Amino acid sequence: NSSAKVGAKCVRLNGALIKQLLDSVDSVLFDCDGVIWRGDQAIPGAPQVINLLKQKGKHVFFVTNNSTKTRKMYADKMASLGFNVSEEEIFGTAYCCARYLKSVCGLEGKVYLIGSPAMEQELEAVGIRQTGAGPDLIAGKQNDWANVALDPEVKAVVVGFDEHFSYMKLNRALQYLSQRGSLFVGTNRDTRLPLEEGRAVPGTGCLLQAVETAAQRQAHTVGKPSHYMFDCVASQFPVEPGRCLMVGDRLDTDILLGSNCGLRTLLTLTGVSTLADAEEHRASGCPQRQAMVPDYYVESIADVLPALQG
Amino acid sequence: NSSAKVGAKCVRLNGALIKQLLDSVDSVLFDCDGVIWRGDQAIPGAPQVINLLKQKGKHVFFVTNNSTKTRKMYADKMASLGFNVSEEEIFGTAYCCARYLKSVCGLEGKVYLIGSPAMEQELEAVGIRQTGAGPDLIAGKQNDWANVALDPEVKAVVVGFDEHFSYMKLNRALQYLSQRGSLFVGTNRDTRLPLEEGRAVPGTGCLLQAVETAAQRQAHTVGKPSHYMFDCVASQFPVEPGRCLMVGDRLDTDILLGSNCGLRTLLTLTGVSTLADAEEHRASGCPQRQAMVPDYYVESIADVLPALQG
Repeated sequence: NSSAKVGAKCVRLNGALIKQLLDSVDSVLFDCDGVIWRGDQAIPGAPQVINLLKQKGKHVFFVTNNSTKTRKMYADKMASLGFNVSEEEIFGTAYCCARYLKSVCGLEGKVYLIGSPAMEQELEAVGIRQTGAGPDLIAGKQNDWANVALDPEVKAVVVGFDEHFSYMKLNRALQYLSQRGSLFVGTNRDTRLPLEEGRAVPGTGCLLQAVETAAQRQAHTVGKPSHYMFDCVASQFPVEPGRCLMVGDRLDTDILLGSNCGLRTLLTLTGVSTLADAEEHRASGCPQRQAMVPDYYVESIADVLPALQG
Repeated sequence: NSSAKVGAKCVRLNGALIKQLLDSVDSVLFDCDGVIWRGDQAIPGAPQVINLLKQKGKHVFFVTNNSTKTRKMYADKMASLGFNVSEEEIFGTAYCCARYLKSVCGLEGKVYLIGSPAMEQELEAVGIRQTGAGPDLIAGKQNDWANVALDPEVKAVVVGFDEHFSYMKLNRALQYLSQRGSLFVGTNRDTRLPLEEGRAVPGTGCLLQAVETAAQRQAHTVGKPSHYMFDCVASQFPVEPGRCLMVGDRLDTDILLGSNCGLRTLLTLTGVSTLADAEEHRASGCPQRQAMVPDYYVESIADVLPALQG
């Protein structure tokens, strides 16, 4: 990146610039929550943007760190919101995590799962057995916990979002991770799930950090900003980084993923990060923070609609 | 600390040096697990050492990061193992945390407790109400969790060891900690509870880190190496740091507490840390790590027995 390019970053996208940018890309990667929907409501105009991009021959993909849904669940949700999207275009971390274990790690054994029913299903779909989602009840005292029964076939610990996360699950993960050669994979490091009105609930990053602290090991994560999320798309579709645009609402996951993979990046202000956040990163003088400055921004993804309709 | 003193650190304590050291101190602070007992067994000779120190007019105190016992529970355990100790000499983090909230913070409201029945009891003993230990069941979906019913009297979140730690407790802590002016206190940051044969279970540090990550706030901790543990002793007994010895088996908690408070320090090798660990810290050239080098070491606390009997 030349300094001239850095200087021109964080440009508001409008008018002729939109057309020019769209002409220069073949593929567009979208984050979902805060970009094309918020909770259960589509961002107004987002379905038309996606559908028109596809009509104009662009490849469109959806990359989300949320691990609580299968590709099928996402496809159903998107259909109900008016998006014309197929399962194959959707890359959630439940699916990507299963692919990673299968294709990159070549995992032969079973997975000890801290996660959701969706993760169970995506693991089973690629032929990986797992120990099951749901509660794990506490029994006995410290010595019993340290000697808890372990499944000898388990060769990996996987941590995703799990509303049944508990001390006993943390303990079981520690015991499996103390075994020689065990794999340790997390879906993502998002520390909070943002909801409406500034509210939030704890994200997978909190659970993963507890397991990492107990196990005294770092997990490999597949979610944004890890480039595996892009590699997973690129392993299935002809995607050229230089002709690809990443659209997201978070600087530390979406925009950083784009920077990490050599994509152009577009921040939309309908979600978590603000323009002030981006400006702060730009002014920081720190290369790591500058990787979180987007090339472009829009108020809403709907801002690109006129260029697509014209 | 002169460099001459640093150079003379980590000296094996024996013969005349023991007598000389004991003559130069009025008070001795002991860690418990790994120092005077292991699990439910006294370290051989430890009860005699403690009892003789007291007979010779030394003040003896016990400072432990374990938050699962009240002072009374410790006194009962110690009596059963042959130690002649009173409740007032015992400073566990369940007790110290309650004292900290009462005396240092002047807490008027109630505590949201992630912790044990022992913590309930120590809080109630100083007149602080709390929400109770035990399970917290999950109900509903993300929006319900973010809007979970909160007790309006709660003004502090306290995190200690809790075998019922769960996603829902993590979530409730996040919601309380998002309230303006709420206090946030942890008992300690030990990441693992070491057991026999190299086994371990997750420690309070894992739970605390999950809550800190979710809340995007740092807790104040009362346990070692935080100097509050020493301040709490010194607020109740006449203890002069320069005439006080700290005895422990962990460099990162016990020895560091001693260094932080200007005490002399003695490592015993019947617990977690090894002499090699201490030598590594000494050789590091890093002042923060050198604060974890003890002044002296013994194989076992029993090594000081001849000097006391002679």
